[in-house]
Amino acid sequence: MPPPPAVSAVRGAVRRLLGSAEAAPFRGAPLVVACSGGADSLALAAAASHAARHAGVPLHGLVVDHGLQVGSADVAARAAEQLTELGAVAEVIEVEVEGSGGPEAAARRARYRALRERRPPGSLVLLGHTLDDQAETVLLGLGRGSGARSIAGMRPVDPPWARPFLGVRRATTEEVCRELGLEPWRDPHNADARFTRVRLRTEVLPLMDDVLQGGVREALTRTAQQLREDADALDELAAAERRRVEVGDGLDALALREIPAALRRRVVKEWLLDRGVPELTDAHLRAADALLTDWRGQGGPRLPGDFVLRRAHGTLQVVAAGRKPPNG
Amino acid sequence: MPPPPAVSAVRGAVRRLLGSAEAAPFRGAPLVVACSGGADSLALAAAASHAARHAGVPLHGLVVDHGLQVGSADVAARAAEQLTELGAVAEVIEVEVEGSGGPEAAARRARYRALRERRPPGSLVLLGHTLDDQAETVLLGLGRGSGARSIAGMRPVDPPWARPFLGVRRATTEEVCRELGLEPWRDPHNADARFTRVRLRTEVLPLMDDVLQGGVREALTRTAQQLREDADALDELAAAERRRVEVGDGLDALALREIPAALRRRVVKEWLLDRGVPELTDAHLRAADALLTDWRGQGGPRLPGDFVLRRAHGTLQVVAAGRKPPNG
Repeated sequence: MPPPPAVSAVRGAVRRLLGSAEAAPFRGAPLVVACSGGADSLALAAAASHAARHAGVPLHGLVVDHGLQVGSADVAARAAEQLTELGAVAEVIEVEVEGSGGPEAAARRARYRALRERRPPGSLVLLGHTLDDQAETVLLGLGRGSGARSIAGMRPVDPPWARPFLGVRRATTEEVCRELGLEPWRDPHNADARFTRVRLRTEVLPLMDDVLQGGVREALTRTAQQLREDADALDELAAAERRRVEVGDGLDALALREIPAALRRRVVKEWLLDRGVPELTDAHLRAADALLTDWRGQGGPRLPGDFVLRRAHGTLQVVAAGRKPPNG
Repeated sequence: MPPPPAVSAVRGAVRRLLGSAEAAPFRGAPLVVACSGGADSLALAAAASHAARHAGVPLHGLVVDHGLQVGSADVAARAAEQLTELGAVAEVIEVEVEGSGGPEAAARRARYRALRERRPPGSLVLLGHTLDDQAETVLLGLGRGSGARSIAGMRPVDPPWARPFLGVRRATTEEVCRELGLEPWRDPHNADARFTRVRLRTEVLPLMDDVLQGGVREALTRTAQQLREDADALDELAAAERRRVEVGDGLDALALREIPAALRRRVVKEWLLDRGVPELTDAHLRAADALLTDWRGQGGPRLPGDFVLRRAHGTLQVVAAGRKPPNG
């Protein structure tokens, strides 16, 4: 009897990812699934279990217990139990969540660090992010408005991470759990409207789907993939241009002006970040660009980290704001 | 006494656009404003009137009457009257709206054709699209999910069209009308929830602003500008690559495989469109790409217009589906 369609879909997604050129260096290594106990990662574990059996490699299931919610140890234990039933070597990792940027960001950092440390060497760690997660990530990036990279979403393969489900709807993973008798944990945070992501999921995306007549999550995911390829190509081309226009401490202003705006912007941005400027907004980069394309002897923009950008001797130079500029 | 801030803002927007390098070829020519009688284009006419006086050039105001709504002739006459008061040579152009794609698309085509034909030779036609319009356009494109170009929005200068207000909020143009005693027409279509754009404006964008804590329209507009620059750079680079990989009727498959995915995709797309394939989706282009990056002797995708793409003799070839392929 063929497996139910949802089960076929998630197995196919894992098989396609593991068969891709990007995953080739990891072939023959153990498979690792990061599992929260939620429907996405349980369905992922089930599909990975099938793939591991076919490939003849061991399956490891890693469950991170952040200790942030009451009963988190029970949730982790139940996830590990189900991983074991799926044929995985299951391990619960307790982590301490601390550091800056809010509890969610700190938990994510601690989780990724623990997964990276505990995975068997040379293995890919499969993550359960779905098409729905990707669409929410793209919308969050749109709200920041910082260009292609911020709306390019998550990569399917970003070693040691791999995300086979970026083309799978969340509802499909829930169906897989029902079909296979898995019992997913429902994180109460996933319904808590204090979280931006939850409101995107429960309010914004359904309204957009209604207004734009469906398929918005799929459209966002398709756009993200194309923008990721665009951004990769532009980054690669910009790195080559930078080698051409970098002269000593500075950038050759006339040579820079001749290259397309999108590459110029990337060259200047990467160069400034490497010179120690901690962060850059669109407005900073547009002001920098004016020194190249609209040069009338003006001073350059003040940059974060107390730097100033200037044009001197035909080059862009970045100096500490307190220090005398080279042509001062 | 300095002008009120809203008036300064719109005058500054027109001044910056007319001072840009892209507008330089039109300097000294008459200025033309396309005016619907709405707040956006009346405020634009006021700002353009100021700019025309300073530059010593005539101002023309073109009002297109589509004849689609009861009383449209009165609306057009009142717009022309206000244009005259602002110092413009005003003209009402009656157009016939016909053709395919729904009444809105047909009206737009008729309007742009009339404006193009009636503008004084060598002049720029200023259009009143605001930052709000741009944000709605980007969201509409996102819903289609067809990559960077579909969410790159409208260009500030796309001769003979120029859009000085893409950085100006719609509310600012309304304030300008109040300040200057202009009487904008309120198009009932702008409140009609049967139009997708109206629902984006009145429902989706306000909700996104609430969830993402403000600034969503500005973020969408910033992203559009960056994506436009990215897409321009990639199109330019892809055109150069295409000249390198085009051999006779086909494209060199091995040479194509070596170039970044984003450029490859563009080369294949432009080549197929030039070969007469009427339209292409993301799925077509991914299937075409598989002939290059995952070649196992498979057949190629069937394309719109009854074409088939194939790999033969180390090249990509496109043939009519009924015809025998070159290696058949």
